[in-house]
Amino acid sequence: MTQQNYPDSRPVIALMTDFGIGDGDVGVMKGVIAGITPDAHIIDITHNVGAQNVPSGAWILAAAYQYFPKNTVFVCVVDPGVGSTRGAIALHAGDWYFVGPDNGLFSYIMSERIIHAAVLLTNSSYHLPTVSSTFHGRDIFAPVGAHLARGLTGIFSELGPSVDPATLKRLEVGGAVRDGTIISAHIVHLDNFGNLITSIPLSLVPELYTVSQVHIVFKENGLTVEKLRQFFADGPDDGQPFIYGDSSGYVGIAVRNGNAAKTLSVGFGAPLTLITSEA
Amino acid sequence: MTQQNYPDSRPVIALMTDFGIGDGDVGVMKGVIAGITPDAHIIDITHNVGAQNVPSGAWILAAAYQYFPKNTVFVCVVDPGVGSTRGAIALHAGDWYFVGPDNGLFSYIMSERIIHAAVLLTNSSYHLPTVSSTFHGRDIFAPVGAHLARGLTGIFSELGPSVDPATLKRLEVGGAVRDGTIISAHIVHLDNFGNLITSIPLSLVPELYTVSQVHIVFKENGLTVEKLRQFFADGPDDGQPFIYGDSSGYVGIAVRNGNAAKTLSVGFGAPLTLITSEA
Amino acid sequence: MTQQNYPDSRPVIALMTDFGIGDGDVGVMKGVIAGITPDAHIIDITHNVGAQNVPSGAWILAAAYQYFPKNTVFVCVVDPGVGSTRGAIALHAGDWYFVGPDNGLFSYIMSERIIHAAVLLTNSSYHLPTVSSTFHGRDIFAPVGAHLARGLTGIFSELGPSVDPATLKRLEVGGAVRDGTIISAHIVHLDNFGNLITSIPLSLVPELYTVSQVHIVFKENGLTVEKLRQFFADGPDDGQPFIYGDSSGYVGIAVRNGNAAKTLSVGFGAPLTLITSEA
Repeated sequence: MTQQNYPDSRPVIALMTDFGIGDGDVGVMKGVIAGITPDAHIIDITHNVGAQNVPSGAWILAAAYQYFPKNTVFVCVVDPGVGSTRGAIALHAGDWYFVGPDNGLFSYIMSERIIHAAVLLTNSSYHLPTVSSTFHGRDIFAPVGAHLARGLTGIFSELGPSVDPATLKRLEVGGAVRDGTIISAHIVHLDNFGNLITSIPLSLVPELYTVSQVHIVFKENGLTVEKLRQFFADGPDDGQPFIYGDSSGYVGIAVRNGNAAKTLSVGFGAPLTLITSEA
Repeated sequence: MTQQNYPDSRPVIALMTDFGIGDGDVGVMKGVIAGITPDAHIIDITHNVGAQNVPSGAWILAAAYQYFPKNTVFVCVVDPGVGSTRGAIALHAGDWYFVGPDNGLFSYIMSERIIHAAVLLTNSSYHLPTVSSTFHGRDIFAPVGAHLARGLTGIFSELGPSVDPATLKRLEVGGAVRDGTIISAHIVHLDNFGNLITSIPLSLVPELYTVSQVHIVFKENGLTVEKLRQFFADGPDDGQPFIYGDSSGYVGIAVRNGNAAKTLSVGFGAPLTLITSEA
Repeated sequence: MTQQNYPDSRPVIALMTDFGIGDGDVGVMKGVIAGITPDAHIIDITHNVGAQNVPSGAWILAAAYQYFPKNTVFVCVVDPGVGSTRGAIALHAGDWYFVGPDNGLFSYIMSERIIHAAVLLTNSSYHLPTVSSTFHGRDIFAPVGAHLARGLTGIFSELGPSVDPATLKRLEVGGAVRDGTIISAHIVHLDNFGNLITSIPLSLVPELYTVSQVHIVFKENGLTVEKLRQFFADGPDDGQPFIYGDSSGYVGIAVRNGNAAKTLSVGFGAPLTLITSEA
């Protein structure tokens, strides 16, 4: 094989939905994309976002998008309002493009990146000929994403009228407030292993691994986590929850070979306080 | 990136099985395909068809295939009879090709599309050198699908002898009988959200959203659904099941943020009656 | 479509992890790969290896790799020791390349294939700029795999210093001892249908289907399986477990339309004896 077999780039479309993989819905979206942009490299982020859980989908996307190539088009469908009056939008933010419902799913993106442009997806010539009231992933978002991946900025402004990003729906995302050695925050994600991810960026606790004591208190049930580990393999497998620096760039809580969410009986949104102290 | 990076077409192979994704079986099928047709774009419809549930697989395929590009090769393996005397077949129907067991999995395809040709997959030069008795997905269907995607009609007739489509196994699929304002039908699919899909095409009830009253009665338990909604987001989230037009093109029953199948205690195959009436 | 649309080969990267598909972790690995080797064909073996179950991952890989094209790069991450002192390695074994932790995940590969070369992945110019302590799949294994797929032997020796394969960690894999008509072995895998796969290669029991009697006794609970079937569809659907030749090339135990692991209350690692006898 010679070097010219490797193109310098190729349209990448990343999909994230809450459709699960038990039906053919995700496959249908990919079939639609393949018909429009045959050379697309379609990559699944996940299709197991909690059903209609927009905040969880927003976080999963936030932890993932920056690892994708420049010009990747993200087609994201967690869309409890499908068929209602919620808008359908595309964003050009940072080095990437985002397509989906205007319901807050792109809140982290909008808070973290420069928004170069935003449009409402009203130009039906980029949709399937027939648009259902319940499956805009197939009928609007997949075809728009496929056209966009093919044409990028050349297509973007044709998708529909510009919209002021300030008018788009945003969730209260992240949010960690530091007051001296006390940080107030909440749980923003439960990962696949039952690890709890907090809204505290590691950059907000530079002393995490150098201070003599760190603990987290959950406000709802008063439970406290006092151990800290740098690696999962660090220390005994004693079933105790510990604080760690998650690979997403946020403070997390895990149980080695266990499920921190179950052990601590806390879940999405749970408020907490992290306190660092010297002995 | 220049336009010539985008080919006008590319061989697309769509896979549907009941293998689940916990083993490497699906990956192995893709490895076999990649070795034969390196440029193939392999798309998963789903691998979570209910174990050995041929009617459910047939329906999922029926709701999906028409959204795939012309010349897509569908490799479908829900195959309780693997290793027995059931035939292995390929169909050229409508604009697509279908490869799998002769057990009714292609019943909707055969009832909806013109069958241009059908063959029995007996030419072992298109199979793996060793064919097991339990994994024809890997040993027969994947390699046949890969060769077919590469050669299309040029390969089709070489796969084995022609077979009369009228002799192929067909399920009693769909089936909704209208008698005045009363339609007798049954449940043909439970989707990933627990929504119930009936065998009633929306085209059979053109008055669905204009008549003053619509209700569905389940024959087994007498439970009745009397609400109708156009969108999932329509109306209050009251836990009550409602009738809606599913994106598959059939009448469905859903519970917003809930599971209609559990709420109504009905499942696959459940007989029902839909009745429209003016007040 | 003309024949030149089909390249003779294309870099194939096969992924196997225990990350599940509920988070975006697998998608992120693919995003990283697409940024380095845009033309890569990324194939999932599975991401549902039992959490941190290295022996199970090793077996799933062993049953799969040989069906992938020559030069496929396998990126495998079942890595309970991530962030600890366990090494990160790449192997060139048989016709394939393997990238992952040095924890025994490649034990079958090393016992079955000639190892042409092995290296430690210490050259950080092939890693992401920032390497976390908990997600080497994203930060080390995915980028190394992508570079390797692009350059193959030209890149291999640049990934880090050579390591003597004899010093790499190996599990006690497989292992079936035949003494006359008695074979001592154990369960090495539970597949997606609940079928039990033993460590007995079919080649060790050439008389399986010709001898008058075969039975398997589980040492822990004394339960015995006495039926033998060639095909799943063979014989009545009586809920009874039976012995069969699995498509992986090993002796298996299944219940038609059932779950052998549950029926027999045995699991991974369970010791057993297979005995053949003439009446």
